[in-house]
Amino acid sequence: MDERLAKQMAFALEIDKEKGVFRQTHLSGHGRNENDAEHAWHMAIMCYLLREYANEPIDLGRTMLMCLIHDVVEIDAGDTYAYDAEGLATQAAREEAAKQRIFGMLPDDQAAELAGLFDEFEAWSSPEARFAHAMDNVQPLMLNVSNGGGDWAEHGVSAEQVYGRQRKTAIGSQVLFDQVVDPAIKRHVDLGMIRP
Amino acid sequence: MDERLAKQMAFALEIDKEKGVFRQTHLSGHGRNENDAEHAWHMAIMCYLLREYANEPIDLGRTMLMCLIHDVVEIDAGDTYAYDAEGLATQAAREEAAKQRIFGMLPDDQAAELAGLFDEFEAWSSPEARFAHAMDNVQPLMLNVSNGGGDWAEHGVSAEQVYGRQRKTAIGSQVLFDQVVDPAIKRHVDLGMIRP
Repeated sequence: MDERLAKQMAFALEIDKEKGVFRQTHLSGHGRNENDAEHAWHMAIMCYLLREYANEPIDLGRTMLMCLIHDVVEIDAGDTYAYDAEGLATQAAREEAAKQRIFGMLPDDQAAELAGLFDEFEAWSSPEARFAHAMDNVQPLMLNVSNGGGDWAEHGVSAEQVYGRQRKTAIGSQVLFDQVVDPAIKRHVDLGMIRP
Repeated sequence: MDERLAKQMAFALEIDKEKGVFRQTHLSGHGRNENDAEHAWHMAIMCYLLREYANEPIDLGRTMLMCLIHDVVEIDAGDTYAYDAEGLATQAAREEAAKQRIFGMLPDDQAAELAGLFDEFEAWSSPEARFAHAMDNVQPLMLNVSNGGGDWAEHGVSAEQVYGRQRKTAIGSQVLFDQVVDPAIKRHVDLGMIRP
């Protein structure tokens, strides 16, 4: 096998491990915990479905690819729960090392391109990154709401914590914040699933 | 919530069920069976990684989206194993009904667009569809090979059956057939994991 192709196939096989990185979110129907690959697949399709609500025009293909690869680093770094302050403090350093190792398996051009997309996502530095973050927030919120908000209750999170993360959804999509996110949070405070 | 957005969110939640449709392929590391959402995520990233080996130029975004949604019908129709002759006989009718119901949840424009992409995939009628089929073949082959070819041995499939499906990989990518698929099949015949 050609050396370039061998590197690409080795990377393709390596990322299979993302299917074993589990998140705090539960699947609909009060299902098991969701893994990173499923989450990324779902986000990418939601980019297509909901792109008309992006605050700024986005390139759909770039945004989907960004969503698909945004959690690859968690193969080494693990999933950091959105409301885990301790984990969040070391997240950047752990993910930077993972980025170097995992994308470094690829030929240089593709390593640079995917690491660049990952950095762009992390920095919220493009319309695509801002909309991808909106998907990263709306997708688990949708699943959690379908289960009556159990993921919030399980971790005892407060409205302040939920808004601290979810308010940024509006940076990518004001419509989705106003019509999906904000009403859902308010309802689940009323239901007692989010602490006031 | 706006009616259009409500339909889009209902579809987004419905497809969560794809995470519970399991395939015959096992994850690397002799893992559990893979589900459709994980398979689609993997295929879409492999479109990006391997597109330079497509026989014809492809639109990457369209091909990724086609991969991401190509198994949505299996929420109703179930997964049909590539070498299950009985299941294959009724597959088309089951999948057509599923297509109507599931994509029919969307606003008309998006329902038509996604059903069209699905039909294009099924008909191998574009460069994107032909390359997506190559990914649909190479992705499970890669996982199976990483596990020593156990999925082939478990089902007692013959080289004729494997080539019957995998020869079509060359329609989308001659390079991937020649450098990845064909050597892997030959090696696993020699190893006794595929019947001669």
